[in-house]
Amino acid sequence: MYSTPATPATPSATAPGGSSSPMPPPLGRHLRSPGVRAAMLVQQEVLYAVRQFLREQGFTELLPPMLGPVTDPGGRGAKALDVDYYGHRYKVMTSAILYKQASLRGFGKLFYIAPNVRVEPPETAGSGRHLVEFHQIDVEIADADRDGAQAIAAGLLVHVVRHVWQAVPEVLRELGRDEGDFSTLVSEPFGRCTHREAVDLLRARGHAQSPDAEIGWDSERALSLLRDKPFFVDDYPKGSRGFYDREDPERPGVLRNFDLLAHGGYGELASGSEREAHYPTLVTRLRESGENPAKYAWYLDLVREGIPGSAGFGMGLERLVRFLTGLDALWQVSAYPKLPGVVAP
Amino acid sequence: MYSTPATPATPSATAPGGSSSPMPPPLGRHLRSPGVRAAMLVQQEVLYAVRQFLREQGFTELLPPMLGPVTDPGGRGAKALDVDYYGHRYKVMTSAILYKQASLRGFGKLFYIAPNVRVEPPETAGSGRHLVEFHQIDVEIADADRDGAQAIAAGLLVHVVRHVWQAVPEVLRELGRDEGDFSTLVSEPFGRCTHREAVDLLRARGHAQSPDAEIGWDSERALSLLRDKPFFVDDYPKGSRGFYDREDPERPGVLRNFDLLAHGGYGELASGSEREAHYPTLVTRLRESGENPAKYAWYLDLVREGIPGSAGFGMGLERLVRFLTGLDALWQVSAYPKLPGVVAP
Repeated sequence: MYSTPATPATPSATAPGGSSSPMPPPLGRHLRSPGVRAAMLVQQEVLYAVRQFLREQGFTELLPPMLGPVTDPGGRGAKALDVDYYGHRYKVMTSAILYKQASLRGFGKLFYIAPNVRVEPPETAGSGRHLVEFHQIDVEIADADRDGAQAIAAGLLVHVVRHVWQAVPEVLRELGRDEGDFSTLVSEPFGRCTHREAVDLLRARGHAQSPDAEIGWDSERALSLLRDKPFFVDDYPKGSRGFYDREDPERPGVLRNFDLLAHGGYGELASGSEREAHYPTLVTRLRESGENPAKYAWYLDLVREGIPGSAGFGMGLERLVRFLTGLDALWQVSAYPKLPGVVAP
Repeated sequence: MYSTPATPATPSATAPGGSSSPMPPPLGRHLRSPGVRAAMLVQQEVLYAVRQFLREQGFTELLPPMLGPVTDPGGRGAKALDVDYYGHRYKVMTSAILYKQASLRGFGKLFYIAPNVRVEPPETAGSGRHLVEFHQIDVEIADADRDGAQAIAAGLLVHVVRHVWQAVPEVLRELGRDEGDFSTLVSEPFGRCTHREAVDLLRARGHAQSPDAEIGWDSERALSLLRDKPFFVDDYPKGSRGFYDREDPERPGVLRNFDLLAHGGYGELASGSEREAHYPTLVTRLRESGENPAKYAWYLDLVREGIPGSAGFGMGLERLVRFLTGLDALWQVSAYPKLPGVVAP
């Protein structure tokens, strides 16, 4: 039996996302730990299933860029790294979102398995939920709306869960997972609520949650523990998310976006939205979010020429593997984990 | 018909690796070009076949790190990019070689599809062979020797060629490729010579090639044009390759390494070697190559504790796709090409 949240004998076993996770051991020991080895086998099957599902749905996989003159400005205190690129300041990608949108005229249904680097505040090192290097299953669909993106996200998750239980059931059982905990996921439509409904529910239960802000980690976990299947949270308020999430034309201040949360305390698996593709609106949204539009020249030039409206999402690979394996911390499902603020000798 | 080296009507059509390649157009137009679109479909099938072959051979795929305190110091004038990582200088990976070796105690047969960033000299922008961002199919095998690594490299290439001709024959034919050009590849053992034999052959044909150095681009292309199937070049001289390539104990100055070159002018597809795993020898090799061993602390600590001897190789994904598609320049087989010295607005 590997270390899992359900195994009180292990010191890190409090609950998924708990703050008691220890640090990863040095690389040589890390990759020999049974839990990490099991997670790598599950990750391999997840990636197989992701590609199988998306290719059958007509998506093309592209390899995303690692550097660029701009990247997603991000949020929640995470920063991009700068590099000196032939005398110009480039960024290491925090997200490939701008490239997804920009590529839709070539490939109307595309996805990446995208490596991202976000310099998170050191105080998040013990959260169990933050890694500086991580991967997103990054999907974008031209001429789709939020419903279309959610249908693909839900179908993808169901396919992945079915596949891993078929391909490596003994690995999952050895980790302490029970196929029954996924039975509602594979047999019923996912749940759904709005951000406003989630806020009301949280407040009724004594959580201090602003209706104008991102849902905090603890609140998200509390929501996740109330459910027995994944659920979408729609309509996040403007200001809580990126400039590229499309504002609802009929409800100013409300974005046509969503998060997909897992049940059982595992919280956010994916974030997605309809995208803003209207040039003047994008420039306004950039300015509203404190960004200088001049820095986004290549992207805005392309938008001005015309890009299709689209919807898409990014599903966190490590978060997905953590949910499937039931392991406590994200560093247990990464071969080369980098915890915020922790520097190698 | 897409632009190919065999199509004199296209302005860039001289020969594979020729220096007349134009620059890629802006992203929006680049991904709409029929050649690039075709290359992406071939790339997708290549990656499918690589994973299928290596998993059937018992390899586990891991996702490599993007940053670290050290990376492969590299060669041929290419440099690594620095980032300020929580107040420490980290490198963007030029190659995941050190992590492959370090991970063998956890996974004795492993591979990555590894993104690499190498800041190449701007004068290489027109070579058709250099991209700042590229990917390697990075394979490592514990307790294997050079023969073992070469058998996997050859088996992998044959499997990939068979698969793409089965999966997307019409895409390859539309690009002007002829299945007959691959018939010797799939039916006969690959060729083989030593670095010394290659140097003698080149000199006999009037090429200025030092027996103590890497084989130059033009010479490599000349060698490649003499053959009708891929071939290994063994035994590169010490000093021409990385400190981690194992020196032949019976022939000082000669490395137990190899390149795999394609026929038809396409040149190098892969480089590999037996790896040095003996701590004092590695420290000596680092010093000989001008590196400060103190910078490699995490790696050398692990080697001192003991890592298995191994052999492996890195096969350039974009070079492989260029060989399969017959496209002229590497930027034509990359979704987001970065040419050395060329900076986006």
